[in-house]
Amino acid sequence: MVQAVQRAVQILRELASTGPRLGVTELADRLGVAKPTVHALLRTLEAEGLVVQDRDSSKYQLGPDLVQLGNAYLDTQELRTRSLTWADQLANRTNEAVWVAVLTGDHVMVVHHAFRPEGAVQILEVGASIPWSTCALGKAIVAFLPAGERERLLAGEPAVLTGASITDPEELAGQLNEVLRTGYAIEDQESAIGDAGIASPVFDRSGGVVGALGIVGPVERVLAESARQELAVAVRETARNLSRDLGAPRGTAARTAMT
Amino acid sequence: MVQAVQRAVQILRELASTGPRLGVTELADRLGVAKPTVHALLRTLEAEGLVVQDRDSSKYQLGPDLVQLGNAYLDTQELRTRSLTWADQLANRTNEAVWVAVLTGDHVMVVHHAFRPEGAVQILEVGASIPWSTCALGKAIVAFLPAGERERLLAGEPAVLTGASITDPEELAGQLNEVLRTGYAIEDQESAIGDAGIASPVFDRSGGVVGALGIVGPVERVLAESARQELAVAVRETARNLSRDLGAPRGTAARTAMT
Repeated sequence: MVQAVQRAVQILRELASTGPRLGVTELADRLGVAKPTVHALLRTLEAEGLVVQDRDSSKYQLGPDLVQLGNAYLDTQELRTRSLTWADQLANRTNEAVWVAVLTGDHVMVVHHAFRPEGAVQILEVGASIPWSTCALGKAIVAFLPAGERERLLAGEPAVLTGASITDPEELAGQLNEVLRTGYAIEDQESAIGDAGIASPVFDRSGGVVGALGIVGPVERVLAESARQELAVAVRETARNLSRDLGAPRGTAARTAMT
Repeated sequence: MVQAVQRAVQILRELASTGPRLGVTELADRLGVAKPTVHALLRTLEAEGLVVQDRDSSKYQLGPDLVQLGNAYLDTQELRTRSLTWADQLANRTNEAVWVAVLTGDHVMVVHHAFRPEGAVQILEVGASIPWSTCALGKAIVAFLPAGERERLLAGEPAVLTGASITDPEELAGQLNEVLRTGYAIEDQESAIGDAGIASPVFDRSGGVVGALGIVGPVERVLAESARQELAVAVRETARNLSRDLGAPRGTAARTAMT
């Protein structure tokens, strides 16, 4: 490991989480590193456009080039680029917002968000990070992971975002088995009160799960007894089409579910 | 400058521009750095989540944490957070897409994008980077910069994106004076054929220009003789309200224009 690079990334994370603006002394304290070292790292990051110094306060904050690197990441995601038209189609078919997500660590990150067609002002959620066990997208992905990875995630500390977040590993494992059986996962207000989701896994040409696609909306609409089944079928079909588009062999989900 | 950090950022930029996936040898060749050095940098970046290694090819690509750092940057931009409701209001008033941008180097970067209310499928342009001289947003910002910075940008190589991009520094300088006089800038297909824009500068409590806000749409709508004046007034008023919201003293634009 290259220590200077580790520390530079630590500085970026401090500015991202505790920021917005920190001075050299504050950063040196937080990192437990000498001030001249922090100063040299900051000047290098500034020259590279990853941090900028505030004219008035001389403090540092994150720089605009990070947005371009983040967008470059999103553009390299074949899952994302291929999902654009499928997500739009599903949003139109269900009249709900559609999210596409990948697993990073024990969170899912939203890489694409198609707005609800007939909606009020909506906030773009690309980049949002949600504990896997509290959302349908996360459960859809984890259910289809190789057994070892699934067990490791089930063994982790369960996240609690609402009173409905599931904390019992046995209950979660039971839900994952249900996902393997039906091909879709459900969230009932486990990450935000009032919100529900239905999501299905997406596979690529390797046959492995690479992410999930699903709808998100008010629990009254998404999980209404009259609508739920039809919405789940729409989500599952769209995820299957997207998987085929990514080169997944036919019957991938079924085969994974049987192993 | 810390060389290891410079090289790590170079790796990220290579993956962003030439990527999506590069191996250790390719990266070592491009950077002119020994393979073991590149390998150590990649392993560090991987441990930090800024790059990921592809399971099949062993090549490296950008990592998801870059999106979170990019979003953290956007969230620290007071210009962006304050602009959300103003941009929506302007989009509704003009029935056009609204962009909010900041100047980074000789480009403007879009930090917020409010969709056109009655539009077809629209691609989110947050993070898009455009040469300042080819768009209304860039001209609106540069016109109100301190004289030294404005001259430096005017002296740079002019960007050519379409046949309408302005390459004569005198003509550009003339347009900037016009912006100072009217309080808004115009783009007539200078960055993309068929597209036009009208933008006004945004100031903060220091009285300095911090960005611009404007509408973007088909030249037939945005620059139609019958609509142009009214749209320009709407843009200028909204930018002024946003500036006041950011703490700009009354009459900032007028004062800057007179210096």
